[in-house]
Amino acid sequence: MSKPTADATDRPDVISRTGPRRSESARLAVLHAADDLLVERGFAGLTIEGIAQRAGVAKQTIYRWWKSKVDILLDTLADDARDALQWRIPEGDTAAEEDLKAHLRRVADFFQDPAGQVLQALVGHAQLDEKTAAALRSGFLREQRERDIAGLRALLTRSLHVTVGDQTAGRLVDLSFGPLYYRALVFGEPIDEEVVDATARAVLMLARESAA
Amino acid sequence: MSKPTADATDRPDVISRTGPRRSESARLAVLHAADDLLVERGFAGLTIEGIAQRAGVAKQTIYRWWKSKVDILLDTLADDARDALQWRIPEGDTAAEEDLKAHLRRVADFFQDPAGQVLQALVGHAQLDEKTAAALRSGFLREQRERDIAGLRALLTRSLHVTVGDQTAGRLVDLSFGPLYYRALVFGEPIDEEVVDATARAVLMLARESAA
Repeated sequence: MSKPTADATDRPDVISRTGPRRSESARLAVLHAADDLLVERGFAGLTIEGIAQRAGVAKQTIYRWWKSKVDILLDTLADDARDALQWRIPEGDTAAEEDLKAHLRRVADFFQDPAGQVLQALVGHAQLDEKTAAALRSGFLREQRERDIAGLRALLTRSLHVTVGDQTAGRLVDLSFGPLYYRALVFGEPIDEEVVDATARAVLMLARESAA
Repeated sequence: MSKPTADATDRPDVISRTGPRRSESARLAVLHAADDLLVERGFAGLTIEGIAQRAGVAKQTIYRWWKSKVDILLDTLADDARDALQWRIPEGDTAAEEDLKAHLRRVADFFQDPAGQVLQALVGHAQLDEKTAAALRSGFLREQRERDIAGLRALLTRSLHVTVGDQTAGRLVDLSFGPLYYRALVFGEPIDEEVVDATARAVLMLARESAA
């Protein structure tokens, strides 16, 4: 059961994008430039002009691929945050509490990374602009939430032998990440080890109670 | 020990502000106008010009009192949010879980109010602008956190007969409000009853465990 059989059919979620492929290096240069400049200059100081200059591409190249700086930042999120926020539950019989703490620690550290600062800037801008809010939800948050629910469920099933319903899994995800986002977005400070530990303990207590 | 002796010395934190007092009605008109216009037009559409017009005061009157629209919004927070977010723990022997749920329900509802939308806009803008972040922390968040820690401690002591240290109280406050801010800021939706209930249960389980 630990080694799923290779699936011979095409997975619809990994079908490659159609369109010109010769500019992949330009695309990556733009994403990295946007990321770097956001950290250096902040959201207000980030311009298409500045990104083009740093990436060494023409402005019209950028406008061919993206409508706005928010669009560019959403693409850097899709590339970087998805990987950084992935649940990496070790194989075998490990302890639920240690695994959950390790995952939450990674999420807490993520807020100090450039990719985490992109997410913070986009969540910030989403409070001020409905279109950014909608794009962030459909372009990143909705899928990230599905991955988080699946990841937490896998952890609970394997280490705690606990199965929870959809609704409960959603609440446990809110309880897992809420305190980390609260510290990062509201107080803007690095997240203490104690916050991570207390959060993981509370999540597992609620999971055990919900399953009982 | 439950009744501290009244302190006869002046408390430095309640010294009243000095300065002209004749314009209190103008001050309130400006704060209400800013609040209303933020809800109607959003943060980007909020201007000093628009606020002056709606409040029926001259622009220079506004600039005499405030440096920017962020400054005005911070003042509306101080007036409105402080009251809306106050802990109202009933006297007598009531249940900790019901009291905590009732408080968290009020905080969840607050995000749907104009004052809650002011807080969301300021937290959003704080992600994009360091000066707003610093002003929001020193002008509101720091004191609100002290009130929250005191309120939660009072609830735990009275209903649960549990005393927790400073560090633990801070963690319990993060766990209480984190999921609500996460739902409101990241997902931008009204907060379900289930989120409030699950959060309150988890907080009290962790409080009991921390005290044991």
